[in-house]
Order: sequence, then C-alpha cells, then structure tokens
Amino acid sequence: MSVVTIERKILEKNDEVALRNRAAFKENHVFVLNMVSSPGAGKTTILEKTLELLRGKIRTAVIEGDVQTDLDAQRIEKYGVPAVQIVTRGGCHLEANLVQEAVKALDLSKLELLIIENVGNLVCPANYDLGEDIKVVVSSVTEGDDKPLKYPAMFRNAGVLLLNKIDLVPYVNARPDVLIKNALSINPHLTVIQTSAVSNHGIDVWCDWLIERATQRPSSK
Amino acid sequence: MSVVTIERKILEKNDEVALRNRAAFKENHVFVLNMVSSPGAGKTTILEKTLELLRGKIRTAVIEGDVQTDLDAQRIEKYGVPAVQIVTRGGCHLEANLVQEAVKALDLSKLELLIIENVGNLVCPANYDLGEDIKVVVSSVTEGDDKPLKYPAMFRNAGVLLLNKIDLVPYVNARPDVLIKNALSINPHLTVIQTSAVSNHGIDVWCDWLIERATQRPSSK
Repeated sequence: MSVVTIERKILEKNDEVALRNRAAFKENHVFVLNMVSSPGAGKTTILEKTLELLRGKIRTAVIEGDVQTDLDAQRIEKYGVPAVQIVTRGGCHLEANLVQEAVKALDLSKLELLIIENVGNLVCPANYDLGEDIKVVVSSVTEGDDKPLKYPAMFRNAGVLLLNKIDLVPYVNARPDVLIKNALSINPHLTVIQTSAVSNHGIDVWCDWLIERATQRPSSK
Repeated sequence: MSVVTIERKILEKNDEVALRNRAAFKENHVFVLNMVSSPGAGKTTILEKTLELLRGKIRTAVIEGDVQTDLDAQRIEKYGVPAVQIVTRGGCHLEANLVQEAVKALDLSKLELLIIENVGNLVCPANYDLGEDIKVVVSSVTEGDDKPLKYPAMFRNAGVLLLNKIDLVPYVNARPDVLIKNALSINPHLTVIQTSAVSNHGIDVWCDWLIERATQRPSSK
C-alpha cells in the first residue's frame, strides 16, 4: 500500500468524523470557527479580546490546540468560558477525532458559539476539516505581504482573513494593501478585517461580524 | 500496516538519504545549515544580509524550500550566489531526497557553505534530517516568548537560535530574556544570537560564528 493511499485514507477518515461533528454542531445550533495561523500571529490574544466583547452577548466555548503545554487554555479560562485543551504531542494540526473527543467535555446544547484554535501552522491544518462552519486565518503584518502566495491553501480554504498587528505597520516594512491584494488573488471571497489586539482596532468589526453570523442560525434556545 | 509504521518507515527512509547527503557534503568539505522558523520570522531577509557580508569571503550556495512560488530564490539570486528553488506543492517540510535532487544542480566541489532554507513551519521540519551539520531556528520577538515551550522539538533539535526582529522590542509586548530562558530550558546547548535584519544588529556576530564554523573543516580547496 503506497504512502499516497495511506494519506488519502487518513483524510477520508477525517472527513467522515468531521461530518459527524458538523451534524452535532448543527443539531445544537452552535456556530463553529476554526482559527488558523502561523505561530505567534496573535490568535490567542485576538481570542481574549473577542471573549471580552462577547461576554453576556453570546454563549461561547473554546477548544485550544497546541503541540505542547496548556498555556493557552489557562489564558482563556480567565474569561469565564469553558475551555478544553488538546495537546497534540508533536502533531502539527488538529484532526476531527481530537475535536470529537474534546467536545465530550462541553455541553453543546448550552452553547451558541464554539471557537477552535488550531495549532500554529500555516500549512498542515489547511487540509483537515474539523466540522467547522468557517476557517478564520489570522495573518500578522510582521510576517510579510507574500504569505498568501507562499501558503495558498490556507487562504483558499478560509472564509475570513484577520490582518492582525496592524498597529505595527509604521515599524515594519509592511504593505497591508499588497497583502490583501495577494490574499484576494488566491481567494476573492475572503472577508478581510484589519485588527490589532493591542489598540483594539477592528475587534468591534470582527465581533459584530461574528455575532451576526452566529445568531443567523435558527435557534431553539 | 498501521499508519504509525508507515510514518516510521518514511522517517527511516529519509534518514538513509540524509546520511548519503551528509557523506557527500563531508567529502566536499561543505558546511551545511538547515534554517527553520515560522512563516515570516525573517529567514530570507537574514539570509540576504548574510550573503552581503559573506561576499568574497566564503563560497556559498542556497537551496530554497517553499510550499509554493520561487519568490525566495529570485531574491537570493540577486546576491550572485547559486540558488536552487524546491517547491513542495503543499508539502509542509523539506525531505532529504528533495535536497539530494536539488544538490545535483550545484557543484559541491566549488562550495564551502550551503544554506538550506526550509519551509516556514515550526513543527514538521523538526523531524526531518536533511544531512545538514546544524539546524538554525529563527524566532521573531513578535511571535511571543512562549514559542520554545509550545514548539519544543524545533528548539531541542537546533544548534543556534537567531532571535530576530530585535529592533521591534520597544513596539511589541516582547521579553527577549524570557524567550531565551524558555529556549535554554528546552535546550541548554543552544547558541543564542540576537539579530535584526533591519538595523543589522547582530548580523556581524552571526556571520563571524558562521565563517568560523564553516572554515573549521579540513579543506583541500
């Protein structure tokens, strides 16, 4: 059996579990995000700011994915939302079965929004459906404006681009307009929101988008 | 055959080819670096500054690894050194056989230093020996000081940490001393050099280290 065949079988098996996750989320009217980025683009800090703004507005839980440590879940729990840490122990991405396990620690019937923070990796998580409604790719202006061209799968598969650390534009050789043009050349359907978790720039726009999308779902709650 | 067995077989096969690469490099007295980092940590820009400083001092070639595009090889060729681009087309790391192929485009007997720039990914390249003498991990202060703890394999397997974008410390919530402490807790043998490819801070220290290491080899050239 060839390696290619094994890889295809892994992806097929993952897609089956992702379908079951998606059905469970839909049944419970939970809107689910899969947040992806390079290490250090600012996913967790954006998440902290998001939880601050969503407090009292929308019932949220978080699943944290990391190669090692539960540092991120510790940060998230301070915001009073349920947080489950998945440690992949060297694994470079989350898979649907890990999410399926993590969800057992949550009561989906009491949630409206589930945010899954994937492992910091701009390559591998692009190919693994977790059952989410939408992938959100976070890209920091400090990473350079060529990243959508060099890592196209992630930008092609995402629905939203949060262009983060926008407060650092004056200090780095960043051209946000070029990065956005490059991202839209890969995926013209991307919703682009410029954010800074330090100055709070754009966090309100992002949260408004999120609340609108999450509450569009028919809900019996 | 289980997936774990397949993965072990892939790594064993990779290690065999890496041994052959290493033998060829040694036979030709070429010192070889494997540069790894998150996307956008500044590998290519450091490489450009390095090539400027090494010009006329040491005969160098570069192998560029990217998921997509040959943008990096285009940047490198401007410095008048041989540059070979490997495009992995979705692959998340370089493997020894890709390097073996790329090396065919170079004349090893005319080189003293070969720099391999890996795919931007802080997880997967850690496990793949390419036949290099040493892994150099580039970490940007903008990524946060927890990265060595969250991505330990890369820091454990590296010999040098270039702590880059040090000029941005005043503008981000960065604590270089904490990052260095975290990195040394994972790997006490790391050589740490603080760099900025913008202000040129530390580039001379890095190049001195590199020239010393590369020219320590017995050479018949």
